[in-house]
Amino acid sequence: MTPQPDPQLGAAVSAADRAHVFHSWSAQELIAPLAVAGAEGSYFWDYEGNRYLDFTSGLVYTNIGYQHPKVVAAIQEQAATMTTFAPAFALEARSEAARLIAERTPGDLDKIFFTNGGAEAVENATRMARLHTGRPKVLSAYRSYHGGTAAAINLTGDPRRWPSDNGSAGVVRFWAPFLYRSPFHSENEVQECERALQHLEDTLVFEGPGTIAAIILETVPGTAGIMTPPPGYLAGVRELCDRYGIVFILDEVMAGFGRTGAWFAVDHFDGVVPDLMTFAKGVNSGYVPLGGVAISGAVAETFAKRPYPGGLTYSGHPLACAAAVATINVMAEEGVVEHAARMGADVIGPGLRDLAERHPSVGEVRGLGMFWALELVRDRETREPLVPYNASGEANAPMAAFAAAAKENGLWPFVNMNRTHVVPPCNISEAEAKDGLAALDAALDAADAHVA
Amino acid sequence: MTPQPDPQLGAAVSAADRAHVFHSWSAQELIAPLAVAGAEGSYFWDYEGNRYLDFTSGLVYTNIGYQHPKVVAAIQEQAATMTTFAPAFALEARSEAARLIAERTPGDLDKIFFTNGGAEAVENATRMARLHTGRPKVLSAYRSYHGGTAAAINLTGDPRRWPSDNGSAGVVRFWAPFLYRSPFHSENEVQECERALQHLEDTLVFEGPGTIAAIILETVPGTAGIMTPPPGYLAGVRELCDRYGIVFILDEVMAGFGRTGAWFAVDHFDGVVPDLMTFAKGVNSGYVPLGGVAISGAVAETFAKRPYPGGLTYSGHPLACAAAVATINVMAEEGVVEHAARMGADVIGPGLRDLAERHPSVGEVRGLGMFWALELVRDRETREPLVPYNASGEANAPMAAFAAAAKENGLWPFVNMNRTHVVPPCNISEAEAKDGLAALDAALDAADAHVA
Ligand SMILES: Cc1ncc(COP(=O)(O)O)c(C=O)c1O
Ligand SMILES: Cc1ncc(COP(=O)(O)O)c(C=O)c1O
Repeated sequence: MTPQPDPQLGAAVSAADRAHVFHSWSAQELIAPLAVAGAEGSYFWDYEGNRYLDFTSGLVYTNIGYQHPKVVAAIQEQAATMTTFAPAFALEARSEAARLIAERTPGDLDKIFFTNGGAEAVENATRMARLHTGRPKVLSAYRSYHGGTAAAINLTGDPRRWPSDNGSAGVVRFWAPFLYRSPFHSENEVQECERALQHLEDTLVFEGPGTIAAIILETVPGTAGIMTPPPGYLAGVRELCDRYGIVFILDEVMAGFGRTGAWFAVDHFDGVVPDLMTFAKGVNSGYVPLGGVAISGAVAETFAKRPYPGGLTYSGHPLACAAAVATINVMAEEGVVEHAARMGADVIGPGLRDLAERHPSVGEVRGLGMFWALELVRDRETREPLVPYNASGEANAPMAAFAAAAKENGLWPFVNMNRTHVVPPCNISEAEAKDGLAALDAALDAADAHVA
Repeated sequence: MTPQPDPQLGAAVSAADRAHVFHSWSAQELIAPLAVAGAEGSYFWDYEGNRYLDFTSGLVYTNIGYQHPKVVAAIQEQAATMTTFAPAFALEARSEAARLIAERTPGDLDKIFFTNGGAEAVENATRMARLHTGRPKVLSAYRSYHGGTAAAINLTGDPRRWPSDNGSAGVVRFWAPFLYRSPFHSENEVQECERALQHLEDTLVFEGPGTIAAIILETVPGTAGIMTPPPGYLAGVRELCDRYGIVFILDEVMAGFGRTGAWFAVDHFDGVVPDLMTFAKGVNSGYVPLGGVAISGAVAETFAKRPYPGGLTYSGHPLACAAAVATINVMAEEGVVEHAARMGADVIGPGLRDLAERHPSVGEVRGLGMFWALELVRDRETREPLVPYNASGEANAPMAAFAAAAKENGLWPFVNMNRTHVVPPCNISEAEAKDGLAALDAALDAADAHVA
């Protein structure tokens, strides 16, 4: 599987990268991006002959792993017949992708607006909500990420918003439930749910419910820490939205398409149906850029006779849609969603809890399906994070040491603040998952060294 | 080339489209998107056996036409080896695409930040400008389109902005030169240039130059009407930007990569180099979604030691980058840019001026390369547009009749307000171009019928 190392080519790739590629979220002269030569399944390798087990799924998007042969073949076939075509036409791949997605979305979310990625999905969902209600404001959670474009970054709670935050016109942030670091001083999930709903309703009432177009939530917040909401919370938010005429948007860009061991994370919450649901990433495992919004009948009706004022050149791109059709079919045929659920329940979950018992740096294990977080702490009693919020440089050294140790053990870890997320491809094998857990075990010693 | 008609499949594609696809910029129940079965070179065809010569290049992006075999092959090869990979790594296709683009951009625009499309490019360019200068405002032109996400639509001058315009915090709009409908009552290009620069400087001075981060202009405004700026205008804007410490952004999403008969439209304006230049569309003919920002040394330096706070999951997507590498190489090897220049000068330009002589509805012919507009009017003297600004329904009937007549003649026209744009693939053959001009000739009779 891993080809011959080729350090010379690797050096050339790196040199051109440093000369010409400007990277996301980075200080350009302080990074040394690893040159990657290839990838397959749950692994990738560099030009030096090092192979890594990918516990990140890229940025949590390669839900079927790298280079799935059926999806690769579907892309090649679509490229041979119709690589690209403009949005204002009906195309087979576009129609079929929309049909397959609508078939899986909950309730009457049956119309699909396609975008290139998650941020554009959020942009369009919030525009739809504002025009559907005629109201200006959108509520979002502090522990959240919704994308890098102006509206999406403004809705984002994490510090990546700060440099682009020019006063947040039209956005109001609130606190979503998170028992481990409860914003409401709760002692159990029932209390956390009640208090979080009370906080949300109080915020709505003081903001003026008639000014609120939408509430947007990640169904299970991803980058912010994989906090599955307590039972009843999403149903409660749904009820508040109904009561006050507010559009309920669930962002399933990261949590959707198998990640949680269900087609959509919202499927875990009996009967909850949002008015709009954003997706991207897992829809085609990012083989070709694609995202979108699934739209309820009521919101679609608003734009039945009145033009929807939004669009983009590559909406419903046929190559991206063909990749989605193939990915969804592969996931269905190969039972990828069920596999993710089973592996989460039987292998990853128990394996992580076992690590927690042996490593004092692990403050909490939480997650479901292929969507897990370890909260690393200096002290289990006080829950003081292993590194401070938004730490960099020296302050972040303990997490950097943990990541370096994982890589030395052949594991590429997902790291955010004081957490590592365990988010491998949803079709990772049991043996691979166990290898990864063993590598994590070794790497966590580096974190334990910083426990008070 | 055109396969057997298959009306049954066409009906199924249309039915699924109507059931599940939510289309850009449209009232969903008032559209009947044509089901397209295939496309090759400058043509596409439906399921009924009708073939159309594409004078739109999709949304002005298939600069090398449909299904170029070398680019299709490159996509298939990249799919076979590395379909996707995350942004924080150095990859061969990513490095090579960045190198080839940087090689062609003017001046020291040598660092490339990749996005999925044009709107995200504009979002990131304006973010860079705001952080580079520490200033809040961006100036843009009324006759412009910059994309559908929050910051990009806010910068847009055309009516697609209106429904999403919540007060335009941080955006100031001004009037760019346009002699045919001069905002400055000019009588010739020299006057128009002087007065437009005076207007821009007056606006800067009254806004407070120290509050302005950037001026963004389409080098040659596209959707808004293909108005090549008069000689000296862009150099004058450059000079104002230098004088007041403002970042000069040129948006080449539509005008770039051969469209004007040069690699970039700015190449027609001796020595003018912007600080940031956005691109998309032609960079890989939209075979896979891709856009980006080319960044000057000075702006890149701002993010050398300090993180650039922007990003997206698919930044520098390898499949999209491989398509760009192949497209740029094809354009170079096959002389597509030179072909566009020659066809514009020798065939399209003269052909359109000939039509203007015979059709009283043609008020002006303007353009260059493969980038032309016919301004249709009720009266050549008064220049009253054939339909009012932003007309729809009955008020737009004359333009609808023109478009229908073109389609009956086998030509798919680009129509915006009272204009038709002639924007075929940059490698259209001379014979095809002449066929298209003949179809336009017939279709313009429908417009002539509405001349006062
Ligand atoms: C929940 C969520 N929403 C939106 C986005 C933005 O998606 P993209 O990077 O494709 O714009 C992300 C990306 O990580 C995400 O996790
Ligand atoms: C000049 C210009 N900028 C930006 C855009 C937006 O590009 P996209 O539709 O890829 O977001 C367009 C699209 O037509 C454009 O013409």
